[in-house]
Amino acid sequence: MEKTIKRIVEETKKASFVLSHASTKKKNAALNKMAGLLERNAKLIKTANQKDIRYAKAKKLAPALIDRLALNDKRIKAMTDGLREVAALKDPVGEVIKKWQRPNGLEITKVRVPIGVIGVIYESRPNVTADIAGLCLKSGNAVVLRGGSEAINSNLAIVNILRQALDEVSLPQGVLGFIEFTRHEAVKVLLKLNKLIDLIIPRGGERLIRTVMENSVIPVIKHDKGVCHTYIDKEADLKKAEAISFNAKMNRPGTCNAMETLLVHQDIAERFLPQMLTKFKDAKVEIRGCAKTQNIFPAVKPASEDDWHAEYLDLILAVKVVKNLNEAVSHINTYGSRHSEAIITENEERAEFFLERIDSACLYVNASTRFTDGNQFGLGAEIGISTSKIHARGPMGLEELTSYKYLIRGDGQVRE
Amino acid sequence: MEKTIKRIVEETKKASFVLSHASTKKKNAALNKMAGLLERNAKLIKTANQKDIRYAKAKKLAPALIDRLALNDKRIKAMTDGLREVAALKDPVGEVIKKWQRPNGLEITKVRVPIGVIGVIYESRPNVTADIAGLCLKSGNAVVLRGGSEAINSNLAIVNILRQALDEVSLPQGVLGFIEFTRHEAVKVLLKLNKLIDLIIPRGGERLIRTVMENSVIPVIKHDKGVCHTYIDKEADLKKAEAISFNAKMNRPGTCNAMETLLVHQDIAERFLPQMLTKFKDAKVEIRGCAKTQNIFPAVKPASEDDWHAEYLDLILAVKVVKNLNEAVSHINTYGSRHSEAIITENEERAEFFLERIDSACLYVNASTRFTDGNQFGLGAEIGISTSKIHARGPMGLEELTSYKYLIRGDGQVRE
Repeated sequence: MEKTIKRIVEETKKASFVLSHASTKKKNAALNKMAGLLERNAKLIKTANQKDIRYAKAKKLAPALIDRLALNDKRIKAMTDGLREVAALKDPVGEVIKKWQRPNGLEITKVRVPIGVIGVIYESRPNVTADIAGLCLKSGNAVVLRGGSEAINSNLAIVNILRQALDEVSLPQGVLGFIEFTRHEAVKVLLKLNKLIDLIIPRGGERLIRTVMENSVIPVIKHDKGVCHTYIDKEADLKKAEAISFNAKMNRPGTCNAMETLLVHQDIAERFLPQMLTKFKDAKVEIRGCAKTQNIFPAVKPASEDDWHAEYLDLILAVKVVKNLNEAVSHINTYGSRHSEAIITENEERAEFFLERIDSACLYVNASTRFTDGNQFGLGAEIGISTSKIHARGPMGLEELTSYKYLIRGDGQVRE
Repeated sequence: MEKTIKRIVEETKKASFVLSHASTKKKNAALNKMAGLLERNAKLIKTANQKDIRYAKAKKLAPALIDRLALNDKRIKAMTDGLREVAALKDPVGEVIKKWQRPNGLEITKVRVPIGVIGVIYESRPNVTADIAGLCLKSGNAVVLRGGSEAINSNLAIVNILRQALDEVSLPQGVLGFIEFTRHEAVKVLLKLNKLIDLIIPRGGERLIRTVMENSVIPVIKHDKGVCHTYIDKEADLKKAEAISFNAKMNRPGTCNAMETLLVHQDIAERFLPQMLTKFKDAKVEIRGCAKTQNIFPAVKPASEDDWHAEYLDLILAVKVVKNLNEAVSHINTYGSRHSEAIITENEERAEFFLERIDSACLYVNASTRFTDGNQFGLGAEIGISTSKIHARGPMGLEELTSYKYLIRGDGQVRE
């Protein structure tokens, strides 16, 4: 197994040198070809997918997991639409980031280049295979994919089609490497190939992320959990506060940018909480509150320390009344996951304090945390949301999949 | 030990929240105060340094190592000059990187922020302690230092003085954490504290870098070896070629941006090599050449595969005659360390081919690789040269010690 994996990644590395300077036109042709071939082979993909689903049912996987696994025409269309949208985006490679001249006449240009070889380790949803392949291709990166065992047949069917498209536009198939080994050990082998892979992006649950962090000698950008907060300040417009809080929780409770904890300034808690929590109750949200919240709104379970850390991704909400803005900030910096937080206030100074002191990727004033998303930000497609602080933070689009190099042009300069 | 280290890093983390929004004025005051106190306590530093040197001599360390360890008035002045220069540099924190508005009215601002807590693991030279402390402070990052056992007394003396300066300008001393444990295990403990430390920068030999890569669950930016190439194209101006090659090797052979391998196009090898290699011979450089080089210039040892990988940092040079530009590019991409490479040519197209195809941080046309340096680039101070491709590449100045966050200002926007 080890040898085979190494051989595949070596092929990807080799292909990366070709792809890194492929023209935008050729990359776009590949993306459009991929979309076309996926459409034409939809039946083949669905047949492979049926195998995965039968196996998942036999293994008695949860219905929610089986649903995420399933590929129907609508999901195949989403894949092909995605590839065509990426083809339409601006190519980040070659962009001049900065250019300056030194007193000795050297001209230094900082240009955007692909990262090289990216390893993506992901779980479940097989449509992710096409999404990632498309984003990496457009940004000039060769990619090695390692999907979960539950989707192996679907993934293989998709990868074979995408590789055929590469072949048809004369790009090496190695541009899209795929590790078929579904055993756990295969991931560990991959994570040691630091001479061949430049970056690892794990997409999946906490256990996967932990395994990757603990075993990788390659840089990792985490696409981690979101424990997002909305803080209702004493100077909040309570109408906005109610609408934004409700949206942050209910628009799509299962996503990483949904609100998990509501913080409320004590001065407005008695005015704000009864109506707000009634609304959540009516929407079947289970509420777990601090002692003060329970006093104000008795139909609430007591929150434990674990609740402040929790990413529920579900119809559960933790609620805490805080003494002041400072306590809100320190609560978020202590329990948050550095993802997205909002303050609702009409006081600009208090808003600035919040923006400055909190160490999270995205900080909102009077808006819903649900906007943390590559499309909502206007980045085009996104490969994920980084909760790392190194390299990329928040929504990651094509630009975040690049590095840079310095080109220095002289006419004989030597160093004194 | 484990508990103490964790306690120190927790204090640093806490201090990082204060430092992250400290004013430029206060940070500069701290830097200038540090310089002043180091000057005033020079005697104390030299006494501590004498202890380290006595111990190093008793342990029979190599004279070169002992020399790097020694602190005299000149080196102390370099430290204080460095701190004052960093004070004079522009503060990167708070800079607006980008700002745009979305159709729904949301205003998104991408602002530069400190990374948070940086762990630096380094060896030998105690003056590095002040350099790193200064750069991290100015960029708003709290830092945990872990220096080598050979410099422990010097490092402690310097750190105590720097912490006193922090105290005098009312910044928490935790801004500058220091791990006194000199045992190997202390490093491993540090590398597991991913909830407290945001970035690890190792500075030292290959063994240190490897230990860090293998044990860290925290992102690492490597300050790795430099196997730098100069390629003399068939269309080179041979005068420039000779001057640049000689400078790249001889200006300071022990540095990471010095040339280790000279590549020469076969069409000009017979014209170029005899005179060039005679010049290197006269300068006491040992030459290890490929078969063709040996044919042209017999007074050359045969180069082995190891020589193409070697970072000599010494008066040794590997020389290879290549068939064409393509072979030069592929040699560099195979054996290089992604640091700095130069092409000497008068043909712009061939220069562009070289710049585009080689995957290194800094690529030169008709100039010496010795220019890869924060000061030479005009970045002000540098914390090192990154051979990583993630986050920062090439010379790392203050800007490279920052991350960013998105501030999103709305007036009640919710997601549809």
